[in-house]
Amino acid sequence: MPSPAEPANLMEALVALAKRRGFIYPSSEIYGGLNGFFDYGPLGAELKRNIRDCWWRDMVQRRDDIVGLESSIIMHPKVWEASGHVAGFTDPLVDCKVSKQRYRADQLFWSPVVVDSKTVGYVSALESEKTAEDLQAAAELFKRKKAITGTLAPVTPRDFTEAKESEIPLIPSPATGEPGSLTAPRAFNMMFQTNVGAMTDASSVAYLRPETAQGMFVDFKNVTDTTRVKLPFGIAQIGKSFRNEITPRNYIFRSREFEQMEMEYFIHEDADWAKCHEEWITWCENWLKSIGLPASHLSRYAHPKEKLAFYSKGTVDIMFKYPFGVQELWGIAARGNYDLTQHATASGKPQDLFDEASKKKFVPHVIEPAVGVDRILLAVLCAGYDVEDVKDEKGNVEQRTVLRFSPRIAPVKVAVLPLLKNKEPLTNRARALHARLQRRYAVQYDDGGAIGKRYRRQDEAGTPWCVTIDFDTIEKPGDTFTLRERDSMQQRRITETELFALLEEQVY
Amino acid sequence: MPSPAEPANLMEALVALAKRRGFIYPSSEIYGGLNGFFDYGPLGAELKRNIRDCWWRDMVQRRDDIVGLESSIIMHPKVWEASGHVAGFTDPLVDCKVSKQRYRADQLFWSPVVVDSKTVGYVSALESEKTAEDLQAAAELFKRKKAITGTLAPVTPRDFTEAKESEIPLIPSPATGEPGSLTAPRAFNMMFQTNVGAMTDASSVAYLRPETAQGMFVDFKNVTDTTRVKLPFGIAQIGKSFRNEITPRNYIFRSREFEQMEMEYFIHEDADWAKCHEEWITWCENWLKSIGLPASHLSRYAHPKEKLAFYSKGTVDIMFKYPFGVQELWGIAARGNYDLTQHATASGKPQDLFDEASKKKFVPHVIEPAVGVDRILLAVLCAGYDVEDVKDEKGNVEQRTVLRFSPRIAPVKVAVLPLLKNKEPLTNRARALHARLQRRYAVQYDDGGAIGKRYRRQDEAGTPWCVTIDFDTIEKPGDTFTLRERDSMQQRRITETELFALLEEQVY
Repeated sequence: MPSPAEPANLMEALVALAKRRGFIYPSSEIYGGLNGFFDYGPLGAELKRNIRDCWWRDMVQRRDDIVGLESSIIMHPKVWEASGHVAGFTDPLVDCKVSKQRYRADQLFWSPVVVDSKTVGYVSALESEKTAEDLQAAAELFKRKKAITGTLAPVTPRDFTEAKESEIPLIPSPATGEPGSLTAPRAFNMMFQTNVGAMTDASSVAYLRPETAQGMFVDFKNVTDTTRVKLPFGIAQIGKSFRNEITPRNYIFRSREFEQMEMEYFIHEDADWAKCHEEWITWCENWLKSIGLPASHLSRYAHPKEKLAFYSKGTVDIMFKYPFGVQELWGIAARGNYDLTQHATASGKPQDLFDEASKKKFVPHVIEPAVGVDRILLAVLCAGYDVEDVKDEKGNVEQRTVLRFSPRIAPVKVAVLPLLKNKEPLTNRARALHARLQRRYAVQYDDGGAIGKRYRRQDEAGTPWCVTIDFDTIEKPGDTFTLRERDSMQQRRITETELFALLEEQVY
Repeated sequence: MPSPAEPANLMEALVALAKRRGFIYPSSEIYGGLNGFFDYGPLGAELKRNIRDCWWRDMVQRRDDIVGLESSIIMHPKVWEASGHVAGFTDPLVDCKVSKQRYRADQLFWSPVVVDSKTVGYVSALESEKTAEDLQAAAELFKRKKAITGTLAPVTPRDFTEAKESEIPLIPSPATGEPGSLTAPRAFNMMFQTNVGAMTDASSVAYLRPETAQGMFVDFKNVTDTTRVKLPFGIAQIGKSFRNEITPRNYIFRSREFEQMEMEYFIHEDADWAKCHEEWITWCENWLKSIGLPASHLSRYAHPKEKLAFYSKGTVDIMFKYPFGVQELWGIAARGNYDLTQHATASGKPQDLFDEASKKKFVPHVIEPAVGVDRILLAVLCAGYDVEDVKDEKGNVEQRTVLRFSPRIAPVKVAVLPLLKNKEPLTNRARALHARLQRRYAVQYDDGGAIGKRYRRQDEAGTPWCVTIDFDTIEKPGDTFTLRERDSMQQRRITETELFALLEEQVY
């Protein structure tokens, strides 16, 4: 497979293609959109659905040690007190009192402007891929505007959480360019809040879950009491979560409403957690490759010990090389028994199991692989997007845009194309094939326009195979079709039986 | 198939079974639960998933005229202004000022107590299957307590929305039994409200969607602009919706968080809407039967013309006979072009299509089949639940509980049972079969306990087939297993190839 195209404007091109072909629309677009919310159009809904289904089949259906769960999005507020989210699920928020703009303090960078070893002022810039350059340019502009002579030192970028109380009034707001309007950072809770029931007071406050994981912990005893699971075992869930991000960004990478696929794998307190952790990291990497993400775009990031929460034994993120940088795709955390212990304390309901060997009760430990569906979808879009020069039927060079999705997740598996739309023997044969394929697979019937044009249309949708029903099909023995492969654009003859066998092997 | 059992305590038995076997748990149960919210355990999550998947495959994948969508749960608040939900999506709420209880006025019934043609007082009762009897009994008690002589007239039950201003202070609160504490009904909006962004003021108010349908309307132009759909065509969506019900009840029938499967079928303004409406009603009925709901439990209810919204051309509900009464399962509404017109006006963006024939623009009309996943799940639980006397291996009569799910939606399709757990030739053959089945189907491997006991366990989970790998399998030619059918309990020999063919035919 050719390496994915990486034009400078890859994100821009992708967003345009995703809109134009009905993968992703801004939410409520006719009303001007809603920042941090997105809709998935016909092709996007299928792609998302396939990602979820592949994960569920591999994670739950094809394993004997993992069961599924669907817990509610709104849970009892005490869940989030016990989990630590009410107190601690915050981002540092900075207000600009003049512009009313709000910033995440850890995304707002600043530096003193130092000329001849003397601080002459301050500059600020929002985090980007070139924060330091922006600050340097701002410092040079500052020096020039103020007509200060001397040698400007290189800027020393720090984020706003590192600003001293005395420095805060001196740092300019990115909105106004003037100092004096930024407030000290305050903790902003990212959980969306609502009220359940007819009362609107403190007693009725509830939250939209910011993660699906707590559902597995709160239902832990229900699952062990009502199924025949034995350690080690996992509980898996797919569902929406909500985070009131101060600055949603990077398209669907950091949105306010998103979908998670999380699994809590419970192990004995004496089990070799590091081995289990490593096994799950490897499993996740392999799974990402199985849906078509190239190994070259994946890497690992182990969180430094000193930055871990006190209960955490270790967290490794599988990183993906997005066009806007290498970013977290899948976090695999060894969380000890923190969550179950917290809920046992807060609820007064023991969350332990009985160990037949030692005749003692214990609270299991957990390994948690947590990934976002939207982030995977963006990754497969980025990795699969390609623009290449190809020759058309007359030998002229033209560009084709192609989404090289794995057959496992491609929204449309096969396009059935009768060579001509007005020849009944062709269309009858095509319709019959289409109907049989449609029983099991998402397929399209397309009889509109020249074959080359129809191929291009399917390339842009990421359809792995086109089958053309042509005169050889109906006139020659063997009842074969032309199978055209998306990536190689090669064509070969194939029978219906062979086509079903190909699909059975590749779409799983 | 035997008719479903209907013990008087069917709901109680069902709720207990659903909990005990891991279908449904109360949400946040260790914290005392949260009224109107439920979690789906391992078997319930699979059952729910299968219901959704069957619907999607039949509604989207297997049709050429319907495309999918996944719009966000939180949409721009103007969506809900235009749709009429901000102003009108309300239930009449009554407070009891003494007990602080809250009631839905249309579920709070009352009657004057009339003795010898004279009103001597008032009684009230909450809606139930025997509201009139309850009121009559209360009236008799009232008469006796007050030692009133004369002939008591039959009560005339009306709901609280029909109480005159002068009657309200005279009607007793169901909580206290005394009049004077009930307020006049006020409109209570059922949308859950939250705030998006760091501001918590009117400018940031947003709602959790109370229905998925508006997503299809708001994205209508996006879909027509980015796909090749032509009228008539539909947009389908499955997703969570939220309604802040004053009195959630009947288990998962009326909960505050639920999942919908809605489809908007757009037709030409001059199309025969009544014919299309009827076709969709029939389609929905057939679909319900295809997942195993008996025709005997289904009926139709056509909303009377005078109760329809002004824009509505007609609504027919497919009703299901639940243990707590015949209730709405699937509403099929002919909504004219109200929604698109509302959004065109509110957004200033035309929502019309161009008619090639008449060379005129027009706003399509819509037929909307809308159903709740949880209601279907409850219906298949109710219809499938059966308790019957059967003979065990020794000829003793015992009771078996069975969930007669259709193979299409059964959480587990096949249980693979080696006759003995410690005979390697048996377990090896069983493991090999299990692995091959597991690639495509949700299956279970169970080697624990006597075969009869394992069959019972699968009966309670609704597993349509058990295959037992026995000595005939490994010792006799043909490599056949014992296939045991859940409903008939009949056994026959089957090969692996035949088993896969059976599954391919029945699980679709």
